[in-house]
Amino acid sequence: MFDLLLKNVRREDGVLQEVAIQDGRFVAIAPKVEGEARETFDGQGMTLMPPFYNGHSHAAMVLLRGYADDLPLFPWLQEHIWPVEARMTPQDVAAGVRLAILEMIKSGTVYFNDSYFFLPETIQAVEELGVRATIGLFYLDLGNAPARERLHRQNQKVLQEWRRGHSSRVTLALDPHSIYTVPESVLRETGAQGQAEGLPIHMHLAETEKEFQDCQREHGGMTPFQYADACGLLTEHSYLAHCVWMTEEDRRLAAERGCVLVANTTSNLKLCSGIFDFPAAEQAGCRIALGTDGCASNNAHSMFSEMKCAALAGKCRTLDPTACPAEKVFSWATSSGRYFVEDAGEIAPGKVADAMLLNLDQPYLVGDYHLRSNLVYAGESSCVDSLLCDGKFIMRHRQVPGEEEILAEARRVCDKFRKR
Amino acid sequence: MFDLLLKNVRREDGVLQEVAIQDGRFVAIAPKVEGEARETFDGQGMTLMPPFYNGHSHAAMVLLRGYADDLPLFPWLQEHIWPVEARMTPQDVAAGVRLAILEMIKSGTVYFNDSYFFLPETIQAVEELGVRATIGLFYLDLGNAPARERLHRQNQKVLQEWRRGHSSRVTLALDPHSIYTVPESVLRETGAQGQAEGLPIHMHLAETEKEFQDCQREHGGMTPFQYADACGLLTEHSYLAHCVWMTEEDRRLAAERGCVLVANTTSNLKLCSGIFDFPAAEQAGCRIALGTDGCASNNAHSMFSEMKCAALAGKCRTLDPTACPAEKVFSWATSSGRYFVEDAGEIAPGKVADAMLLNLDQPYLVGDYHLRSNLVYAGESSCVDSLLCDGKFIMRHRQVPGEEEILAEARRVCDKFRKR
Repeated sequence: MFDLLLKNVRREDGVLQEVAIQDGRFVAIAPKVEGEARETFDGQGMTLMPPFYNGHSHAAMVLLRGYADDLPLFPWLQEHIWPVEARMTPQDVAAGVRLAILEMIKSGTVYFNDSYFFLPETIQAVEELGVRATIGLFYLDLGNAPARERLHRQNQKVLQEWRRGHSSRVTLALDPHSIYTVPESVLRETGAQGQAEGLPIHMHLAETEKEFQDCQREHGGMTPFQYADACGLLTEHSYLAHCVWMTEEDRRLAAERGCVLVANTTSNLKLCSGIFDFPAAEQAGCRIALGTDGCASNNAHSMFSEMKCAALAGKCRTLDPTACPAEKVFSWATSSGRYFVEDAGEIAPGKVADAMLLNLDQPYLVGDYHLRSNLVYAGESSCVDSLLCDGKFIMRHRQVPGEEEILAEARRVCDKFRKR
Repeated sequence: MFDLLLKNVRREDGVLQEVAIQDGRFVAIAPKVEGEARETFDGQGMTLMPPFYNGHSHAAMVLLRGYADDLPLFPWLQEHIWPVEARMTPQDVAAGVRLAILEMIKSGTVYFNDSYFFLPETIQAVEELGVRATIGLFYLDLGNAPARERLHRQNQKVLQEWRRGHSSRVTLALDPHSIYTVPESVLRETGAQGQAEGLPIHMHLAETEKEFQDCQREHGGMTPFQYADACGLLTEHSYLAHCVWMTEEDRRLAAERGCVLVANTTSNLKLCSGIFDFPAAEQAGCRIALGTDGCASNNAHSMFSEMKCAALAGKCRTLDPTACPAEKVFSWATSSGRYFVEDAGEIAPGKVADAMLLNLDQPYLVGDYHLRSNLVYAGESSCVDSLLCDGKFIMRHRQVPGEEEILAEARRVCDKFRKR
């Protein structure tokens, strides 16, 4: 007995098929699947595609969308973002994460790799809304020993509770913010802990020219990648956000270690950090994923928008119109799921049952010669009709349970922030 | 008696208002408008904003969306685009223009400034679907005298018919393709004809570095702008597409002449032509508008996507995160309407009654501190609930009359092109 049987859905090439799902995995895909199912879904007119995996986010920062834009990095942080972040409560973050997840679901994203405060509330929102996430045990040197100690204790508590039991959709990662906000001793401990406990590592790396230059000056000429490697932070379970400032040698190192480079092109353009060199990373054999970053520096969670930005900026950086072809960009946003979730990123028997069901009857998807190109260059959230995560529908026909309450609650928090 | 009365619509600041429309113009905007109306529209929950004006397009090229991507300019043109364009019939172009207009309406655009073949079919589609357009009397030197003569006669016929009678929504422009595809004698005639007959001029100018260098070499060191000016092509009714390769002196010249510089940022990135220098053009006092260009090099008609691209690439070009602030970018996409249509681009009594009615209950529009920033950085077509052009609804609650037939007809044409 299957859990779910999708009928009348189209493959990317337009051929009709049936898709059976059991225990959160695709178990049979064929023109006609034999067997009974607890639930049957008529996918008439819909096309099944792998969904998006968002490689780097600060979900709750959706509460600061449009709060302060078009400013240089430091005034933006010091005068706008940090003061309001200092006032955020766990309840605020809960409301923000739920809004971010709603936005992601509506734009075809089933997973995000998150770095922020107030982890129990974040984990609860992920569990309830049915998506997947890697939640970072965020660490940043707050300058004084008691604050450091408190953050460390909080993280330990989250880790212990998670070990006691959690949904298969939630993973934790060690999450030292960056090489310039975390002392070397902690970076080295993090590297060792990651190895010892089998936890992934999520951090910002090589985002700005300043970080690159400061690192070389302070660490005997080492680049951020070389320094991170010396601290044991580069493994095949390392998710490195930004990676704009890399040398050829850094790329070879990253490829050898197997770490995942998460490009956040929109954010890097908005804050003028630079452009990730996609062709060079590809050529070096690096694993590449895409991320939206937080909504204060993007300002959206749409992977459609992120794909288009990556394709365009990637060409522009190298002045090569053949760079970042649509097919590649689409795979960085979807197949890259396998770097974050075992057996994800592909619609095939045995793989985890994550999928978008697309309604291609959109003016923006005709001419219809090349679906992946259309999704990269012209796609919008509205073509995602339904979304499957872990074998369950988390959106049906554009409806997500509870969305009105999520919007209302997020607006209440924004009202509070507005009244400074 | 008003033609139309909008009730319960919100201004951008959230205040409720009523809006009366007569003879295609806003005539009264107030908390309570006195008077009867032929039709009343309940705008409950909607926010009224100026709509988008698309400053440069090749509408029918929507039929080639995704047909060939990620290629260098010349193989792309010679091996893919030109061969299929050579097979396009007037009926194909009619189907393409209708699809393009549908896509534009659905994303909040009421006007496009078009350059392509088969003008009668294009004009008819504009008339029927209720939008506005400037249709270019496209001219390109086809290399032999009979072909030149035929194109010239066709254009003369379109101009004569238009002079005999046309909707106020359709304007014609002289449309010499570029300085490198039209001989100097014709460019000079075009400049003189524009002045004599009061017709706007629409052309590509200073798009690529090659054009810039060739022009300097062939025309005694003159830049494309200087050469175009020498031909009498720079007036306050000149719409110049691309303008990527300009000197400071060119910008002063463009500002002095009052011509409209139409940035096509997405297309320029995709084809690696460069990035329009928004801050420099602003500072020189130039008039700026945004365009999507054709769908073969974008590949969308969404001005939301174009605004985000302009904001991001504009910052990146100058490495200044304060460049291209959202407020400015939004005005280049909306208020710029006044450059193309008299009294357009503003919601105020006496102005032409063009407007978007937005439904802001979208996850991607919360946090909700700054509506214009959200529309620029996170907006999608789906927030445009209804669209007014010339005082009439051309979309109501996301429905456009005839859209299924438009999609079906466009797909039939694409099928034909696919079977090469």
